[in-house]
Amino acid sequence: MEELTLGIDPGSRNMGWAVLTSNGALIDWGTIRTRPKTPQPETLHILHDALGDLVARFNPCQVALEDLFFSRNVQSAMRVGEARGTVLLTCAQHGLPCVSYRPQTIKIALTGSGKADKQQMADAIQKRFGMHPPSQHAGDAAGAALCLLEER
Amino acid sequence: MEELTLGIDPGSRNMGWAVLTSNGALIDWGTIRTRPKTPQPETLHILHDALGDLVARFNPCQVALEDLFFSRNVQSAMRVGEARGTVLLTCAQHGLPCVSYRPQTIKIALTGSGKADKQQMADAIQKRFGMHPPSQHAGDAAGAALCLLEER
Repeated sequence: MEELTLGIDPGSRNMGWAVLTSNGALIDWGTIRTRPKTPQPETLHILHDALGDLVARFNPCQVALEDLFFSRNVQSAMRVGEARGTVLLTCAQHGLPCVSYRPQTIKIALTGSGKADKQQMADAIQKRFGMHPPSQHAGDAAGAALCLLEER
Repeated sequence: MEELTLGIDPGSRNMGWAVLTSNGALIDWGTIRTRPKTPQPETLHILHDALGDLVARFNPCQVALEDLFFSRNVQSAMRVGEARGTVLLTCAQHGLPCVSYRPQTIKIALTGSGKADKQQMADAIQKRFGMHPPSQHAGDAAGAALCLLEER
């Protein structure tokens, strides 16, 4: 059976995901969207359920995450951490190894430059996978998965 | 049946908890400890299981959390957010309303002053509950629960 890698760009409002084969071919990608007005506990519950559904649907053998090392402020870092924690918990609950990559590492994997801007990233993703991602987050998730595949 | 309030001081290494009656009497308190060397996904898994056990054991009707608004840096805020997210997720999974309180609010509830130091907090907790808490985190968790009880 094909071994699949799940890439995740964790955010509590827009969580990007992408599933790649061991050769780096794209199986599917998408964005889990939650409403800004939904209280945070319920938002995390929705994300946890949606992540569990992705794992059940694709049965990946590993997970790659985009990691945020900078943030506007401590409060916003805390919110991102809450969403990230939900991804890490889901991985542990399913016994899935997970590896985090800095945005810069993902940029280098896709464009060859750690300083690529949004347009350069979008072009690289379009070229690499032959189509536009459903969202920037889904593209970043695919980039994270590529980083993990290139490592192994 | 007595309605119980669960107080939580979220941290990924030492998570304090306390269970209080609607009159503010202490039922039990403790600390969920994890090892620094345990990978974060597994740590969150342990915390999630332990929190689920507390909910099953005491069947609380509401949860009060200590909220961190300051942190050494973005990375440490992210780690606290991951642990906090696990608490929020557990609340949502069990349909438990949860309210967060700043450390200052908890200090005022226990000592009358938002500037109380650790010793003054320890003395106030000892006086309020007639015994020393098993950890500072458990004392803070009891303080958070008191804040919620005083509000209602």
